[in-house]
Amino acid sequence: MSEIKDSLPVSPVKVACCQLAPKVGYKQNNLDKTADFILRAAKDGAQIIVLPELCSSGYVFESRAEAASLADAYDDGETTTLWQGLAKDLGVYIVGGFAERSAATLFNSAAVIGPRGRMGLFRKVHLWGDENLFFSPGDLGFPVFATEFGTIGVGICYDGWFPEFYRTCARKGAELICVPTNWVPIPGQDPKREAMANILTMASAHSNSIYIVAADRVGMERGQLFIGQSLITGYTGWPVAGPASPNEEQILMADIDMASARKARRWNDFNEVLRDCRPDAYR
Amino acid sequence: MSEIKDSLPVSPVKVACCQLAPKVGYKQNNLDKTADFILRAAKDGAQIIVLPELCSSGYVFESRAEAASLADAYDDGETTTLWQGLAKDLGVYIVGGFAERSAATLFNSAAVIGPRGRMGLFRKVHLWGDENLFFSPGDLGFPVFATEFGTIGVGICYDGWFPEFYRTCARKGAELICVPTNWVPIPGQDPKREAMANILTMASAHSNSIYIVAADRVGMERGQLFIGQSLITGYTGWPVAGPASPNEEQILMADIDMASARKARRWNDFNEVLRDCRPDAYR
Repeated sequence: MSEIKDSLPVSPVKVACCQLAPKVGYKQNNLDKTADFILRAAKDGAQIIVLPELCSSGYVFESRAEAASLADAYDDGETTTLWQGLAKDLGVYIVGGFAERSAATLFNSAAVIGPRGRMGLFRKVHLWGDENLFFSPGDLGFPVFATEFGTIGVGICYDGWFPEFYRTCARKGAELICVPTNWVPIPGQDPKREAMANILTMASAHSNSIYIVAADRVGMERGQLFIGQSLITGYTGWPVAGPASPNEEQILMADIDMASARKARRWNDFNEVLRDCRPDAYR
Repeated sequence: MSEIKDSLPVSPVKVACCQLAPKVGYKQNNLDKTADFILRAAKDGAQIIVLPELCSSGYVFESRAEAASLADAYDDGETTTLWQGLAKDLGVYIVGGFAERSAATLFNSAAVIGPRGRMGLFRKVHLWGDENLFFSPGDLGFPVFATEFGTIGVGICYDGWFPEFYRTCARKGAELICVPTNWVPIPGQDPKREAMANILTMASAHSNSIYIVAADRVGMERGQLFIGQSLITGYTGWPVAGPASPNEEQILMADIDMASARKARRWNDFNEVLRDCRPDAYR
């Protein structure tokens, strides 16, 4: 039997990274905007579509009551119901961030929805700044989601500051990690360089041999600037699309091959990055 | 009592990152070269001096016997004896890589030596490629070393592909991590960009709020190219010196303040990066 050619794609898929500007409080407008981006991405052939963090509610809440008023349930809320209808009609996967209400508790969550319906939920594990006033920390760990293209992991924004998140997803089989995010300016940023958030994304893509789609928002909300610069990185760590504009809405698209990420983890006769981990030494 | 000014340095120290080109087999020449670089760095005021991986032996061994013939003991071998004498005479700390013989076992190690003598040993935890033919994997975990300037962690080359290494050192109190390295070209590198090894270093410096001194070698050995591009990163992740040349010997120097790295880990009222880790979610 002859060997399969290295270049033969075995799990090709077109992914879209949607950078948009929600507006806190304008939930219906925000939902309409997500629908518009999903439709445009699908029209261009996208099969997996990633939306930013909290993209139906907006980000900068004035109070818990406001956050609660913009949140909805995963099972039957208006955000996931809209996205589920689109995913079914268009035959696509959607990973998008929304404010989740679960009984009296709020989470900063992302829904994973496929052509056959709701697949599951990720709840942001590491809350940033004032999010701690509104949301409870995620209680579901880092679940992964199987699709016919490969396995998807999810994390939100500040989760990306924890390489443990990417490693955990990769160890569970993820080949593509979707990161709905609302990156803000951080101290020490070199204004001549890409965002440190991009550097973190590239490093984690490389050191786990995974694809990462980080879908950021743009715009200003109650004095808080968001930095855009969404990107899709290949498993080598280098961007395959983006970074996007720091201030314009935009859709990045890329053809990726999820199986190749897994294959590339074997770096030579001796080294395979996930197997080379030495938990005994990390104490 | 008035608050201490944010800008008041409490643990300033001048560090040197020595990028040099050892030659496999020419141990005496290599030792002389390390002495030359240590003297030059100390003359320019360096108090902590970092040398590359395997800098007294060279890297590309032809056989185990050759590796063994170029290795020496930590306790009384010629490499650490030379460095100990210089550290004492010059009143400096030296962190440098050498091939360590311990009974019949070889390790790819780094010695940490201070003005008062040998302080301890790090043995490379993650071996790369053919190193697996010559060396045993490190059995000491990631120890840290206390100095009057702050706490130092150590890792070697491929260890840097494991964010777990940096996190472990930071958790143990390290504010500066010294990385003797022999970086080689890797597939997928964007020739227009800094090395992916630099990106990994920057990401780990930022996401742990630590300084990193990565001292690489240059030159070609038995057909294997090394890429130089040594760097010193600040705790924000951005380089404070370097990247150095891809092919020339060079010393990078920087004034750093190790205490400030620890202070900067508190990012806002809610977030301190090491305390924000959620081991319960990384399973």
